[in-house]
Amino acid sequence: MKNFNFQAPTSIFFGEGQINKLSRLLKEHGNNVLLTYGGGSIKKNGVYDAIYQELNNEFNVVELSGVEPNPRLDTVIKGAQLCRENNIDVILAVGGGSTIDCAKAVAAARFYDGNPWDFTANSGLVKEALPIVSILTIAATGSEMNGGSVITNLETKEKLSFGSRFVIPKASILDPTYTFSVPSYQTMAGSADILSHLFENYFNKTNDTMVQDGIAEGLMRTVYHYTPIVLKDPSNYEARANLMWASSLALNGLTGSGKDGSWSCHGMEHELSAYYDITHGIGLAIITPRWMAHVLSDETAGKFAEFGRRVFDLPKESSKIMAEKAIKLTYDSFKAWGIPMTLGEVGIDDSLLEEMAEQAVAHRPAGSVPFAPLAKEDVLTIFKASLEEMTF
Amino acid sequence: MKNFNFQAPTSIFFGEGQINKLSRLLKEHGNNVLLTYGGGSIKKNGVYDAIYQELNNEFNVVELSGVEPNPRLDTVIKGAQLCRENNIDVILAVGGGSTIDCAKAVAAARFYDGNPWDFTANSGLVKEALPIVSILTIAATGSEMNGGSVITNLETKEKLSFGSRFVIPKASILDPTYTFSVPSYQTMAGSADILSHLFENYFNKTNDTMVQDGIAEGLMRTVYHYTPIVLKDPSNYEARANLMWASSLALNGLTGSGKDGSWSCHGMEHELSAYYDITHGIGLAIITPRWMAHVLSDETAGKFAEFGRRVFDLPKESSKIMAEKAIKLTYDSFKAWGIPMTLGEVGIDDSLLEEMAEQAVAHRPAGSVPFAPLAKEDVLTIFKASLEEMTF
Repeated sequence: MKNFNFQAPTSIFFGEGQINKLSRLLKEHGNNVLLTYGGGSIKKNGVYDAIYQELNNEFNVVELSGVEPNPRLDTVIKGAQLCRENNIDVILAVGGGSTIDCAKAVAAARFYDGNPWDFTANSGLVKEALPIVSILTIAATGSEMNGGSVITNLETKEKLSFGSRFVIPKASILDPTYTFSVPSYQTMAGSADILSHLFENYFNKTNDTMVQDGIAEGLMRTVYHYTPIVLKDPSNYEARANLMWASSLALNGLTGSGKDGSWSCHGMEHELSAYYDITHGIGLAIITPRWMAHVLSDETAGKFAEFGRRVFDLPKESSKIMAEKAIKLTYDSFKAWGIPMTLGEVGIDDSLLEEMAEQAVAHRPAGSVPFAPLAKEDVLTIFKASLEEMTF
Repeated sequence: MKNFNFQAPTSIFFGEGQINKLSRLLKEHGNNVLLTYGGGSIKKNGVYDAIYQELNNEFNVVELSGVEPNPRLDTVIKGAQLCRENNIDVILAVGGGSTIDCAKAVAAARFYDGNPWDFTANSGLVKEALPIVSILTIAATGSEMNGGSVITNLETKEKLSFGSRFVIPKASILDPTYTFSVPSYQTMAGSADILSHLFENYFNKTNDTMVQDGIAEGLMRTVYHYTPIVLKDPSNYEARANLMWASSLALNGLTGSGKDGSWSCHGMEHELSAYYDITHGIGLAIITPRWMAHVLSDETAGKFAEFGRRVFDLPKESSKIMAEKAIKLTYDSFKAWGIPMTLGEVGIDDSLLEEMAEQAVAHRPAGSVPFAPLAKEDVLTIFKASLEEMTF
């Protein structure tokens, strides 16, 4: 186990009706609130009205609405401007990872004179940020409990991230009933995203981390168990609650701390999203089993076999066979949920694969050590394999 | 899943050499330090010298040494007095759960005019506390990452707890090499304590908590895997590191949040420790499998079977049979580690069993809902069964 620093300072208020804490949580920071949200689903499902009822005219609220599913630099700049003009004390981010990620970039950009895109090259430029309170409406990215943010620059076709402890939400309200109205497509994309966060930390060169891996296995089993239930019965509280809590814990440092090494699939998917603006979780689901198959070797088979044993309850046999079964089950599960499992189905053809493969490698942080090495040719092979159905 | 609030604000510095953060961590709070520790093992293993070297004469240090394995009210009162007299800014607790628990009570008692024993009847009396930084030297109680504290009142033969967010350590240094010198007996007692925390939250009436239970299963597997390794090879870094991190995560709210219901074995064991001053983890190991066997029923068998499947990899068969095998494995594992598994071996005869059973029920919080009901007669049956070897 490598040395690490772990802290989970976000105060999580989990469960139905926890919005009754909102007014108190905001007041700790001030009365001038920037309310950020996305395309307006919170107006349809009642969350928007519930917020204003709870705020009870006691706050000065400025709205930043229309935050994009892959939130854009322009929106961040606009949000920071709103914060300066209105002397904002606290940001209330209502939505999923995109809205919360955008709020983080806005919170930091408020105190930064340059272009906030600079953060993606150097997170250390974030020296201060407005406090953030979030209300989560989809189980997916875990942004509600960490300091990571992913922003898209349409001009340069880049989707890049930064991370800072200054932008970790002070408090997050996790009410599973707010996810009852999430459509199937977004629900399965969210589950794929949770799994991908777990996979990225689990398939790692650091091997002596049974604590972290045992936690990850438990969270993976949870996602595989409850996703089909929720797709059939969207208002199942037990299932929505478990998926919601799994999403936060999958990426708050619990499963990644003490490990050394970089992620594999997120970097590749960010190129797909940056070029084609597809749903992040869907892109991850498409790429992941192809990546697994591509990096399967004598060296990596043991870990894939362990994954199959702990998560899919595979009986013990040779590592290679167990690994192959586990990869097939990963693919089959996504397909059974209803995820379009080829690039063509999400509108991506072979015309830009080479350019995206190049960019995926170029955007990788220096000194990056993935589970298995991925040169440009490897990424291209994985992209090309994602054009066709997988066969086993 | 029940509604809950979760936060893990302690900043954990995990790994070899992290003591180099100590000076910075203390300085955030001030220069006047109360250093608390136990019987002096930190002088033998070099931790004491390492601390003073790191402090580099830049702090005013007052020592409270000799904190007992079951820390006593008298020591708490003495510590609070030292804090007032020396205008202490921060408490540095070096040791295991006893030392850290004692530090928590001292930190709160510093600002309380009455008898700190009052906290055990009403945690709400804690309104303020000195900041605590801990250096952990044994993997066991998880006190390094939570707000719980257990104190013993020798006069009344009571061992009771209180909990407050004000006494959660601000930072904890977890260096696995500091546990290399922990003797076998304390190592196995620590592992039994970690398991017991996991059991107490796992065997619970709230059933729809796959996230919490999956995490608990992963941590249990870790303890069962690494404890025998460490008993053979006390300086195995990988094993000590996994046990250390498991101990903190077993009782920081991760496995208990969202569940409703009270603990079963800790209350019974606290009577044994209060009357006979035995090692807490050993008492837990003795009581736990008898409790499991006593509460095994058609209603509870499913959960014990799931425990056996996830933790001991038992093949699927009837719940009752799997449950019985899991209970036997729980007993056999403790015995294989070398734990004395009958009360007689730790100096307890049948003379006070009835009185202790009465007290165990009397000390239970009002409205307590355990996994299976435990009247005084049940506790007495479990105590009596703990006099004899278990047979299966």
